[in-house]
Amino acid sequence: MNKRLVLKILGATLLIEAATMLPSYVVALVYHDPGDGEALLKTILIMVFLGLPMWFLAKPRESNLRAREGFVIVALAWLGLSGFGALPFVFSGYLPNYIDALFEAVSGFTTTGATVVTNFEHYPHGVMFWRSFTHWIGGMGVLVLTLALLPQMTGRTSHLVRAESPGPSLSKIVPKMGDSAKILYLIYAALTALQFAVLLLAGMNPYDAAIHTFGTAGTGGFSNYGASIAAFHSPLIEWIITFFMVLFGINFALFYRAITGDWRDALRSEELHWYLGIYGTATIFSTMLLLPRYHGFWEALRYGSFQVASVMSTTGYATADFNLWPVAVKMVLLLVMIVGGCAGSTAGGIKVVRTALLFKLGRREIRHTFQPRKVQVVRFEGKGVEEGMLSQVAMFFCVYVLMLLLGAFAISLEGRFDVETNLTAALTCLSNVGPGLGAVGPVENFAGYGPFAKLVLSLLMLAGRLELFPILALFHPAIWRKS
Amino acid sequence: MNKRLVLKILGATLLIEAATMLPSYVVALVYHDPGDGEALLKTILIMVFLGLPMWFLAKPRESNLRAREGFVIVALAWLGLSGFGALPFVFSGYLPNYIDALFEAVSGFTTTGATVVTNFEHYPHGVMFWRSFTHWIGGMGVLVLTLALLPQMTGRTSHLVRAESPGPSLSKIVPKMGDSAKILYLIYAALTALQFAVLLLAGMNPYDAAIHTFGTAGTGGFSNYGASIAAFHSPLIEWIITFFMVLFGINFALFYRAITGDWRDALRSEELHWYLGIYGTATIFSTMLLLPRYHGFWEALRYGSFQVASVMSTTGYATADFNLWPVAVKMVLLLVMIVGGCAGSTAGGIKVVRTALLFKLGRREIRHTFQPRKVQVVRFEGKGVEEGMLSQVAMFFCVYVLMLLLGAFAISLEGRFDVETNLTAALTCLSNVGPGLGAVGPVENFAGYGPFAKLVLSLLMLAGRLELFPILALFHPAIWRKS
Repeated sequence: MNKRLVLKILGATLLIEAATMLPSYVVALVYHDPGDGEALLKTILIMVFLGLPMWFLAKPRESNLRAREGFVIVALAWLGLSGFGALPFVFSGYLPNYIDALFEAVSGFTTTGATVVTNFEHYPHGVMFWRSFTHWIGGMGVLVLTLALLPQMTGRTSHLVRAESPGPSLSKIVPKMGDSAKILYLIYAALTALQFAVLLLAGMNPYDAAIHTFGTAGTGGFSNYGASIAAFHSPLIEWIITFFMVLFGINFALFYRAITGDWRDALRSEELHWYLGIYGTATIFSTMLLLPRYHGFWEALRYGSFQVASVMSTTGYATADFNLWPVAVKMVLLLVMIVGGCAGSTAGGIKVVRTALLFKLGRREIRHTFQPRKVQVVRFEGKGVEEGMLSQVAMFFCVYVLMLLLGAFAISLEGRFDVETNLTAALTCLSNVGPGLGAVGPVENFAGYGPFAKLVLSLLMLAGRLELFPILALFHPAIWRKS
Repeated sequence: MNKRLVLKILGATLLIEAATMLPSYVVALVYHDPGDGEALLKTILIMVFLGLPMWFLAKPRESNLRAREGFVIVALAWLGLSGFGALPFVFSGYLPNYIDALFEAVSGFTTTGATVVTNFEHYPHGVMFWRSFTHWIGGMGVLVLTLALLPQMTGRTSHLVRAESPGPSLSKIVPKMGDSAKILYLIYAALTALQFAVLLLAGMNPYDAAIHTFGTAGTGGFSNYGASIAAFHSPLIEWIITFFMVLFGINFALFYRAITGDWRDALRSEELHWYLGIYGTATIFSTMLLLPRYHGFWEALRYGSFQVASVMSTTGYATADFNLWPVAVKMVLLLVMIVGGCAGSTAGGIKVVRTALLFKLGRREIRHTFQPRKVQVVRFEGKGVEEGMLSQVAMFFCVYVLMLLLGAFAISLEGRFDVETNLTAALTCLSNVGPGLGAVGPVENFAGYGPFAKLVLSLLMLAGRLELFPILALFHPAIWRKS
């Protein structure tokens, strides 16, 4: 293990986190809420005082990163990000219990949006801004950001990006990883600015528009209102946010292809077809099942399409208490909660590409049982998929389900709530969605859990965001052994 | 497709089913309940009149079975078994709706034990005996029985047994498949006789002892009392049934090895260690969590060990309404419900060997992410496991989870019950357990579902019993295509 290099990069991420906290500090200065700016400034200073010596004093002997170090860096960076990102909640006195604050910060960075906050009205503007800004940072990844800002820092950085970027395959947009990271962030910033402008035009005030743009762009789902998007009582805003939630669940590489002129090629993407197909099917099902509950088709479609987009993109905003909806709609929401968005987007879940490959693999396996000698290649995006990748996808799903079950069992040990609540709490955290069913439904929150469950759920959120393995690897003894 | 051979073997299974109905007819003659014997005799005659011509008139040109035909035969045989096995319930007038009767018969043959019967007290003895006897037939498999009785019938029969026997690998006990089938049935009959004798000694009347021995041996769980085993108010009987439920979840090949003198070798079985390890751990957890609810450690252990044995062996008997137990115990029960018993036993679930391999695979996959170049062989029972087998195990689990989720969604379309009920109903049927949670808990039944859900759940039970693929294969167009 190249410990000095690990330390140096962790120092860099701390400094970058300090920098990303500055906009929230500016917001705090504008609104002058008591204790607000102070809490943020204290945190920034702590991070700078710790990060600077790590960055300058650690002198790595070689600049090459091995896979093992990449995983350790990513896992520790995310633990560190959340650990320090939680401090403003504590210092401002709004979540005085550190475990609560940590849960909220992890939920923010992993773009989950599950909250333990109950008194939304009284929150100071700067800390609330920071809470939502963590979604924006976490959505695209802080190591991708580090790479975009410091491309010369490390020689081989693909391990870092691979560990942090969602999806089974590394999607380099352009040959150089640093350039890819820059392009990703540029597209991300441009789409964010676009949504912010559209929300302003739709009549939102700038502060609310910023908060809800961060929540949508990072597919996080934090709102500064307890009622989430329902607080605006505006169908127009609901349709706008539906559109952007679906948009941010799409692979960003497709946006790049589309921008650089290859519109038609981007539209031919098989993953996009699966994504829109599943989204469309789930929306139609939900709308039909919601018809008796709302006034006419369009209202049912508005509620159905919003909620399916919110859950499938793993954002987690709500315009209705879907806990009260028919049981079949709830099952649809649970299914798309597992699927999630496209690889290379800011969304969570097992990703559409894995869902599609699992479906194709299952079909092949059924056929294989009665035609054992027939060799069939699974194709995706027009190309044959390697067998190694296919078994990785199957194993990913197995590990995903096992973590879900063991996580739900662990939080059940506290003896709170019912099976439905605990199962969906584990699922919504692992898929980085936010609300579940039962006592963690869209009009409830996670404050009812004890500290043990909050820590377990935080680990599930991190595992979900980093696609399971970096976090699980931390618990494997071999990663700490000398090679 | 060698259609004549398929027809001939299906005819044989019908005749064998008619033969297996004779003991129930004898019971009916003894008790003289109104309509009882008549219903059974009618069904026997129908099966004989259909089966005889199929057996004698179908003249296959070749006697070799290909994998495809094996799967079709197994799937159709089980559909046929259940379809005709349901008739006594209809003819006797106790389940006049054919869908209800079919659900009950499928639940019997697949050794699930989920029931739609509500008025247990008034059931005629012969039909009730048949209901439980289907567990005994289904436990070891009707095609294995066919093979034991007619070993000369087909040339290559391994496909049949492979499709019907639980577990990922075909366990031939002795070189000839027909002899293996005979040995399996001999061990099965001997253990059944042993339990029957022990229950008689414990004070049960012969009829009750027979019913509950069939339910235990087949790991089915049908009782002739609404309160299940709790009806006997006898801790002794509870301990006896706990012991036999654990016993019938063990691979029968181990019994053969033990009987033929190799006790020590049988005890060294890695699957056995996993089985007893998981059972022990789950029992200790449950007992600890149940301590506040019962009078002292031994009572908690009695309830805990019984229920874990019942659910893990996928029997489904109950001595308490575990719906009212702490949520963590319910989660333990759901986890062992997925695991199930050993391969080569009469139990359902994904099987202990697959659980163990999944665990080892997951650990390898975690290590593989940060040490991609290290080649690791997964070992089981002291031998390296082939990669092809490992990916089959992972795919099996994926397909299992997908069927569970889609099944739960399908029954939710009826709009009845909650997510917990529908999810656990699908799970308990797919794992062939019997009771679930919520409205399908141990003191409830499946009568509240509509006909559509009952058909979906019947398919899940058959898919679970036949280890998914034979039933799924029926829906694959390629199986019906000319080769």
